[in-house]
Amino acid sequence: MTDRTDMFRLSRRGLLGATATGAVVATTGVSGGLLSSTVPAAAAGKFSLAPGELDEYYGFWSSGQTGELRILGVPSMRELMRVPVFNRCSATGWGQTNESLKVLTEGLLPESKEYLAAHGKVTYDNGDLHHPHMSFTDGTYDGRYLFMNDKANTRVARVRCDVMKCDKIIEIPNAKDIHGMRPQKYPRTGYVFANGEHEAPLVNDGQILDDPSQYVNVFTAIDGDTMEIAWQVLVSGNLDNTDCDYQGKYAFSTSYNSEMGTNLAEMTENEMDHIVVFNLAEIEAGVAAGDYQELHGVKVLDGRKGKNKKYTRYVPIPNSPHGINTAPDKRHVMVNGKLSPTVSVIDVEKLDALFEGAEPRSCVVAEPELGLGPLHTAFDGKGNAFTTLFLDSQVVKWNIDKAVRGEDPIISKVDVQYQPGHNSTSMGETAEADGKWLVSMNKFSKDRFLNVGPLKPENEQLIDIAGDRMEVVHDGPTFAEPHDSIIVRRDIVNPARVWNRDDPMWEEARQQAAADGVDLDWGHDEPIRDGNKVRVYMHSIAPNFSLEKFTVKQGDEVTIYVTNMDDIDDVTHGFCLSNFGIAMEVAPQATASVTFTATRPGVHWFYCQWFCHALHMEMRGRMFVEPRAA
Amino acid sequence: MTDRTDMFRLSRRGLLGATATGAVVATTGVSGGLLSSTVPAAAAGKFSLAPGELDEYYGFWSSGQTGELRILGVPSMRELMRVPVFNRCSATGWGQTNESLKVLTEGLLPESKEYLAAHGKVTYDNGDLHHPHMSFTDGTYDGRYLFMNDKANTRVARVRCDVMKCDKIIEIPNAKDIHGMRPQKYPRTGYVFANGEHEAPLVNDGQILDDPSQYVNVFTAIDGDTMEIAWQVLVSGNLDNTDCDYQGKYAFSTSYNSEMGTNLAEMTENEMDHIVVFNLAEIEAGVAAGDYQELHGVKVLDGRKGKNKKYTRYVPIPNSPHGINTAPDKRHVMVNGKLSPTVSVIDVEKLDALFEGAEPRSCVVAEPELGLGPLHTAFDGKGNAFTTLFLDSQVVKWNIDKAVRGEDPIISKVDVQYQPGHNSTSMGETAEADGKWLVSMNKFSKDRFLNVGPLKPENEQLIDIAGDRMEVVHDGPTFAEPHDSIIVRRDIVNPARVWNRDDPMWEEARQQAAADGVDLDWGHDEPIRDGNKVRVYMHSIAPNFSLEKFTVKQGDEVTIYVTNMDDIDDVTHGFCLSNFGIAMEVAPQATASVTFTATRPGVHWFYCQWFCHALHMEMRGRMFVEPRAA
Repeated sequence: MTDRTDMFRLSRRGLLGATATGAVVATTGVSGGLLSSTVPAAAAGKFSLAPGELDEYYGFWSSGQTGELRILGVPSMRELMRVPVFNRCSATGWGQTNESLKVLTEGLLPESKEYLAAHGKVTYDNGDLHHPHMSFTDGTYDGRYLFMNDKANTRVARVRCDVMKCDKIIEIPNAKDIHGMRPQKYPRTGYVFANGEHEAPLVNDGQILDDPSQYVNVFTAIDGDTMEIAWQVLVSGNLDNTDCDYQGKYAFSTSYNSEMGTNLAEMTENEMDHIVVFNLAEIEAGVAAGDYQELHGVKVLDGRKGKNKKYTRYVPIPNSPHGINTAPDKRHVMVNGKLSPTVSVIDVEKLDALFEGAEPRSCVVAEPELGLGPLHTAFDGKGNAFTTLFLDSQVVKWNIDKAVRGEDPIISKVDVQYQPGHNSTSMGETAEADGKWLVSMNKFSKDRFLNVGPLKPENEQLIDIAGDRMEVVHDGPTFAEPHDSIIVRRDIVNPARVWNRDDPMWEEARQQAAADGVDLDWGHDEPIRDGNKVRVYMHSIAPNFSLEKFTVKQGDEVTIYVTNMDDIDDVTHGFCLSNFGIAMEVAPQATASVTFTATRPGVHWFYCQWFCHALHMEMRGRMFVEPRAA
Repeated sequence: MTDRTDMFRLSRRGLLGATATGAVVATTGVSGGLLSSTVPAAAAGKFSLAPGELDEYYGFWSSGQTGELRILGVPSMRELMRVPVFNRCSATGWGQTNESLKVLTEGLLPESKEYLAAHGKVTYDNGDLHHPHMSFTDGTYDGRYLFMNDKANTRVARVRCDVMKCDKIIEIPNAKDIHGMRPQKYPRTGYVFANGEHEAPLVNDGQILDDPSQYVNVFTAIDGDTMEIAWQVLVSGNLDNTDCDYQGKYAFSTSYNSEMGTNLAEMTENEMDHIVVFNLAEIEAGVAAGDYQELHGVKVLDGRKGKNKKYTRYVPIPNSPHGINTAPDKRHVMVNGKLSPTVSVIDVEKLDALFEGAEPRSCVVAEPELGLGPLHTAFDGKGNAFTTLFLDSQVVKWNIDKAVRGEDPIISKVDVQYQPGHNSTSMGETAEADGKWLVSMNKFSKDRFLNVGPLKPENEQLIDIAGDRMEVVHDGPTFAEPHDSIIVRRDIVNPARVWNRDDPMWEEARQQAAADGVDLDWGHDEPIRDGNKVRVYMHSIAPNFSLEKFTVKQGDEVTIYVTNMDDIDDVTHGFCLSNFGIAMEVAPQATASVTFTATRPGVHWFYCQWFCHALHMEMRGRMFVEPRAA
């Protein structure tokens, strides 16, 4: 194996001719003329926006290990909003307000709750959010929801696009460490497909430990409307990324470790790994027929090799395929080779035959060599594909039809800085791909920005793809990490400007207020005592909280409800109780609440920490905590 | 009082002539000709950087209620790094690694530890980081440290500029809710001055509750080298922002609530509030002479009105002064009026006389009317000042000398979008102010970006100030909130590219490894057991952890130490233990560790969550947790 340091110390040219595993491969010749010059390409549109000009697209970005979702404007590449999902957010109180804790805790498995309780917690504080994707209707984005996975703690979450807040998080039982995730494209979402990446005993109670022969991997289909698990399928080999067709018949997953190895040598041993093709109708029929075991309340079918061949087929693919992307031509699926310099092109029209017994590789209609380390492919809707080459630090533009005809498909290459992983094009994972912009999400930035210490930003680069030659027009540093993104036409996304007072997000507060005989909108002049539980209801209208002060007793369990009765765009309030570690966001017309135990006697100030008014700093009040009798 | 909705519903023109409190004031006439046109000003330099071009300046940004420090590049306004400080960070493990918990916990007061323990925590998860400022030597930045305050939980933190990580956080006793904070400019930092904003009983044990006559406010001087408290001074009235002179003799704080009122009417009652001037030499003499009470281990002097007049003087300033900024001329200090349309200009050369009995307002050498809602002032080093006008949504450029001479000082105004708070200029709070760029940190963005739901970004705008007419060249959306910033010439900041293995950050790990007879660099093949405590030492070199697997018993308290032995720029690794809520960053040549209880039996994978290599996904290993005997 090539020494690992070579991958960083050798130039790309030095690496041509050798894959990471040392197998000699032929590479497509890259002439200097193919590399983009600095001459601007035909402009896809204006990249640089003047102050006040709006972006053409919403970009929805994963943040990788930061655990949040990010909303960017494209092409300006400005971060417009952070949406906390799997992380803990100091600003919004995500992970602390009762409303967010409901979302974060109600989908946790009992063993997670037990583990967390042993650490004084009710939910995880971290996540590893890899793949954000929007719900589809009829092959294109429908602006309802965003779905995203957490590899760190085996979860899938949903964000409501009307308010851009997370409303559901579920932990996936049986599977381990959800990685690849995509919504069903047709007829609608429908299913959200989620890959369990890591192999482990199906019943992971410690009876099986270092015996990989008894490990399994699990593919999960979630109902995107209810966020309940529809079914699971056991597979052979591990699972990496996933996608599905535009016909609503098949889903597919790559496996980089068909060997079920547990160390590097074992995992990279085979020259061929595979993708798994899932036959949705047959799986649904299997569920209906009762051909499953029920585990953790989930129907688990067996799709492993040599088991029921109706549910799955295994298509051999060269060494360690990674990304998988269905083209907007609704026919071709790109399987990116990672350790092979190839992308394997699957024709979905040949998948029926596969399940009828055709030779497994009969659905592979092209396998062009594109360069070193192909990881992910995006599309322009004009028949072209854009594949990131991790080891080459390039994006290669190539023509799908030419590849299928066996011709050299490469149109051009462009250097990116450095080591690209995912890429995305404007509307590129839908039938409405428009071929204007491509973002290359690069794992290293090295010298591209002012040095900020041992920890560097990643680099997401914006590339104009309207012409034949791609042009990098912007380097964008990002905090760990710009893992994946989608770029959505702005007319599809129409968030609310203020909350609706009837929103279900604070239904429990609504019910508690009703039980207490309190108008949740306007609050109550005095705390409501219920044993040592105290409920405080207040509203906020800039620059005042409705309560100037309130009194509780030391040791009380206090719940504070704040309703923001301002109804003006952008007049968000905060509620911060100092020296109590409590802070929450209360956007216009929203209610938020928090519960804590008042251990500290004395005078404690609460204040609005979300700038709201010229007298913002004066927007404050006092909580008196009467000391416990000596 | 003007109805609060008027502030948002009326146009700026409609507001001219009325302050927020309804007092009629004369406003400086603003002719249309004074407003910046769209004709570009004389360019300060290139705003738009081509891919790969480096910024001229580091920008260090507070994040307000997000609790982190941000590093931006200026003029590109790109976020280069987030440095977690008071917040919990899913990506880096800040708030979870033993190294970060040491920083976060060792400076907490006993009553905070008790409160947190009652909630299953050892530290706060949130902060409200308002003011980031760099250490000074001889009146300019020296590149050693950044200091910042937490209003939410009354703390002050320090970030090491060599590695851009927080190394010290202290909770300030006696004071309540640290707001304004600035480092001493001369001869060096030296002191870090910190204002307690909120009034409360000095001994806040619940014996005094709703009796504001017994409340106090506290000004704190911290030793920036040791991060220990040097002394505190009790003051009359509350404290808002602070700054100091270039001579090392005086510090000053504004008070918006000299009334010590506890509701809006009381707080805004007086036509005049004040600033407090602190005489550093006299305070040090008072400490030396024992003229203090000791509270929570801190020497507290009494500088309230009518007490020892050597320590403090109170200078009357019109209604609710907010920001205070010392000009690079080393002589003038701007006190921004907030509810008064004026900025009061203090001449530091008149402060000696003040302490010798001169009339309190004798040090006020000008008080120009500039517009509605002046909050903060920045400087260009050419004799001009730039003041944000919150209610006018403008920045006004004016000449200091003209103001002192009693002439109309206003040079030009520029509209900003919308409601600016702090502003900062390149090197503007040092003697090396260079007059190239100004950033206006605006509290509302409203319609300036694609709508992202009820919660909007703020808007930090970059303004070219090289010419007489200011030009807004960039709108920058930011997540809550761009509270304050400094802009530092890049030659001053020289962070390391990889960690030094001798760094004190992981001294406890170093000592534990030595006690265990383990080489911390390279780790150990087997866990080291000490009763039910288990220590696991491993190193990482892409794409491998040195341990492929290790075994512990259910219920063990496990500490995992990971040392990143890669020494290549930007090859950061992560360690994520899935379904255990554990994730940490390990930058090149660093050690990080985490401790948890292994409650979950079974096979559990750890993986590198910081993309490092083509075989990054294969960089993983297994923790076996043997089940407790039945």
